[in-house]
This record gives sequence, C-alpha cells and structure tokens, in this order.
Amino acid sequence: MTGRGNLPERVTVYEVGPRDGLQNESGVVPLEAKVRFIDLLTEAGLPWIEVTSFVRPGAVPQLADAENVARAIERRPGIRYVALVPNIRGMERASGARLDGIALFTAASETFSRKNTNASIDETLERFQPVVTRARDQDLWIRGYVSTAFGCPYEGDVSVNAVSRVVRQLVDLGVDEVSVGDTIGIATPADVVQVVSAVVDVVPLEKLALHFHDTRGTALANVYAGLQLGVTTFDSSAGGLGGCPYAPGATGNLATEDLLYLLNGLEIQTGVSLDRVVEASRYLAGILGRRPPSRYYRAVA
Amino acid sequence: MTGRGNLPERVTVYEVGPRDGLQNESGVVPLEAKVRFIDLLTEAGLPWIEVTSFVRPGAVPQLADAENVARAIERRPGIRYVALVPNIRGMERASGARLDGIALFTAASETFSRKNTNASIDETLERFQPVVTRARDQDLWIRGYVSTAFGCPYEGDVSVNAVSRVVRQLVDLGVDEVSVGDTIGIATPADVVQVVSAVVDVVPLEKLALHFHDTRGTALANVYAGLQLGVTTFDSSAGGLGGCPYAPGATGNLATEDLLYLLNGLEIQTGVSLDRVVEASRYLAGILGRRPPSRYYRAVA
Repeated sequence: MTGRGNLPERVTVYEVGPRDGLQNESGVVPLEAKVRFIDLLTEAGLPWIEVTSFVRPGAVPQLADAENVARAIERRPGIRYVALVPNIRGMERASGARLDGIALFTAASETFSRKNTNASIDETLERFQPVVTRARDQDLWIRGYVSTAFGCPYEGDVSVNAVSRVVRQLVDLGVDEVSVGDTIGIATPADVVQVVSAVVDVVPLEKLALHFHDTRGTALANVYAGLQLGVTTFDSSAGGLGGCPYAPGATGNLATEDLLYLLNGLEIQTGVSLDRVVEASRYLAGILGRRPPSRYYRAVA
Repeated sequence: MTGRGNLPERVTVYEVGPRDGLQNESGVVPLEAKVRFIDLLTEAGLPWIEVTSFVRPGAVPQLADAENVARAIERRPGIRYVALVPNIRGMERASGARLDGIALFTAASETFSRKNTNASIDETLERFQPVVTRARDQDLWIRGYVSTAFGCPYEGDVSVNAVSRVVRQLVDLGVDEVSVGDTIGIATPADVVQVVSAVVDVVPLEKLALHFHDTRGTALANVYAGLQLGVTTFDSSAGGLGGCPYAPGATGNLATEDLLYLLNGLEIQTGVSLDRVVEASRYLAGILGRRPPSRYYRAVA
C-alpha cells in the first residue's frame, strides 16, 4: 500500500504571494525587492504567479507600482504571470503590461463585497463584463476569485447556495478558472466536501481552484480533502505571507512551502522546487525584517 | 451532503501538555502553576491527562516534582490521570501517586532509543516487563509510546516493519493502548495510511492512538487521514506546548486547540470545551511569558 490512494498525479500550485501577500504589508516594499522576489519564484518553477494588482494606487499604495513590476520581472516560458484587475480602468492599465492573464475578485458574502469593494456582488459582476470582453480580445486567461466562500467576518455563515450562485455567474461570464476561497481561514474538511460537492455542479473540476488560509491550522487538512475530491489547483503564498495583518502571529494564506511539503509527501507532481521557494521567502524575510509564518520554513530555515 | 463522510462519531483526545509539553521547557515551572494548569485542563473536560513523568529527577529537572504534582491536582470522576514511567524505580515512585494509568516510552528507531533512553529498543521492552506486572497488580491502565514511527532525527527513514514489530511487542507485553508518534513532525497523510494500515494487523484500532507534531504544518491533515482510517484516539498538547525547544518558532506537539477545532468542524464528539482549553493555555502562557504556537489560540486569544 503506497498511501497515495486515489489522489491526482499532478497538481498546479498558483502563487499569490507578490499580490495577495504583499498587499497586506504596511511598509512599502521597494520595486527592486518585489521584482527580485518574483524572479526567485520564477526560478523555483512556480507555473502561475500573481504578480501585482491594478487597483487604484491610492487604495493600496503597496501595489501602486504595478506597471513597473510587470515591466521589470523576468519571464520564463511555461510560466504564466497574472495580475488582479478590479475594473475597466485597471484593465486599461494592465493592457500594456505583457501579462498572461488577469484575475477578478468578488465574494460570496454581500456584506464582505460591499466593505471590500464598495459594491454589491452583482455590481462587481457587472463591472467585470467589459473587463472580460477586453481581456478576451487580448487573448488573456481569466480567473475569478470567490472570497468568503466558507464564512464571512461580518455575516458569519455563508450558504453553499450563495457560493454556487457566484461561481456559476463567473463561469457564465466566461472565466477560465474559479478560485473559491476561505478568506478568514475558518474551514475544516467537512466544509470543503460540502462546498466542492456543490460547486462542481456549476464549474468543471479542472476549472476549480481552492484558496485556503491557515489561520486555525486547518489549511493542509482542507487541501487533503480537496485532493480526495479531485481538485488539482491550489493557491498559496510563499512563506505564508499575507492574510490578516491585524492579528500578530496569526497566519493568513497557506504557505507555498507547507503546500509543497504535503504534495511532495503524497508523491504528487508539481514541477516546483521547495528549496527554491524557501530561498525566495528567505530573501523577502530579509526585506521585511521578520520570519515568515510558514511552518516548513521555520523548521528548516 | 453533510461533509462528515464515514468518520468516527466520537474521538478521545489524550492531553500530553503537562508532561510532554513541559518537559521541554528550560525554565522550571513552579509546582503551583503546574497544578493549576492541570486543574484547568480537568475543567476543560479532557478525558485523559498525562500529568508528569517519574523519570530520574536529575535527567529532567522540570519534572522532579512528579510526586507533588500527582498529590496536589484535583481529580474529577471520568477523567483519567496518567504518568510516564521509565523503569521499575519510576514505577515504585508512581505507585503511591493515585494514578489511573502509566505510560511507557520506546521507539521504532534503534539510534533514537539509544540516544534518548540509553538503551536498545529490546532493552527498553525488557525494562517494561516488571513495570507492567506491578501496574497490573495495581489495576493501572497502561499505554505504550512508539516514538519516531514516521522518521528519526538520526536514521532518517524508519521502516513500517520496524514500527509494526515494536507495536506488536508492546501488545504482547500487555499494554492497553499504543500511541504511534511522529516525533519529528515529518509525516504526511500518505505515511499515515501506510503506518496505520500496517499496524492494525498487530493492534486493534480501538487500542491505537496517533501522536502528531505540527513541525511542518501537516498534523491536522494527518489527523484527518487517521480519522478516515477509523482511528479514534489522538494525542495533543494544550497550546501546542513542547516539541523541539531548539528550533525557535518551530512548533512541536499538535495543539489541543487546533485538534479540537478540526474535530468540532467535523462534528465529531469529544466532550472537551475548546474555550476552556484556550483558558488553560492562556494561563500557562502567562507563566512562561510567551504566546503558545497553537494557530487557533493565536487566532482568538
């Protein structure tokens, strides 16, 4: 008995550190450091890297240098570089940035959507329409995020039906992948089984990604549950960067190192070098002046 | 679909914090604080608490007050208080301590056994023989630990056959439960499937406990794998106390809070109050002067 069971042979790791991780950093990281960090992630072989966000510079000063980041990073064949695009103005800025794809961000919780994007869920989806059209014209790959899919910091429980509805709307809009996210890190495998079982009715498994936060230590258990259900794309952030900056010591995004350690142990192919991801995290730790929360990182670095 | 799947209805949480956690603390914790900590764990409803160890006082000064701890703690009906006993001298000390059970400690790795207990695995088992006889005479419940069952800090890989052999020897010796441990926190669910599938040939599932460390973030994924295999007893340490004191920031024992959060999410009964375990950890954190590594604790406390 190998212990692998009926798990996928291969998994896609989608790296969100440069965008989702850095956007929560209060001190602005210099452009050169961001570029070096992304280049190290490229060297690690991460197949998808979300490098920045074309949000309004005043809203997230950390990512105000989006054009410059996209211009300066090294590209390698086979690696896709993606940026978050909130609306058509962001899309205009992104258009000249030599990206492979864009990501759109909405939520399963109405209150979270309003607080986070100043728009109802339906309004965010209306905003996406012209963005998707423009992205299609430019042959860009499109991802849609459904945040707070497992719970909301304002509303608490979020119904599986609410999640399915938004996932279906994104699929109808024409996105290539939907990333269903546990924004507050509250999910356990029972929730993963429930949510995945529901959304596979509206999105094919191969277009579904799961995005976990390790706030309560359950992220890898949730990944394992997702793998058993046939999910083959998982989001993670080098070093575990990001999440909730207001809870010191509490971690946010699942660390890429921890995810890779699990996948390696399960003999699932990723094409990513765990050692080199640690190097990327170590570099950024020097810039930020603190150790990343990744458990694997802390065990070895 | 509830998401629970075919998991056990009820799980036994075996608390090791006062022994396995505290023994790694360099600063000696005062007797009164240990007793208060254990009393708070009792109030949380933990059904099994390993309260101390009757090792030679010179070897582990932190636990030199074993008799006094056992004498001073409050007992509640339905909760079993256990102490580690390394040999017949320790058993003599433990005999008057009003315990419900004793725990014996050996390893699956020969090198670890020699470095940790100054004896080969077979020698530890020989030492246990008179201890078991004495414990039986006193109607004490007996647990056997098989450490380094998933890997050894000196030998690296440990064969499943080596684990099975020691488990069988402990069962033959007459122990009531075997706790199979990932001492260095290296296991992933594939290893759990392999090891559990092998040892259930020599120990019934209801006598098997799993003991995980969260060093690389995989502990709860491993618990989930164990639950799916029908294991119903898991060891944990309040706050995540213990493990490797030489790796700052790296965690050791799976935190009781994190384990309970997972089990609660899976709707598995434990009879333990998560909030009250947090209170126990918070109390000890004040004594130790630092925050416990438990992810759940850090998210809420």
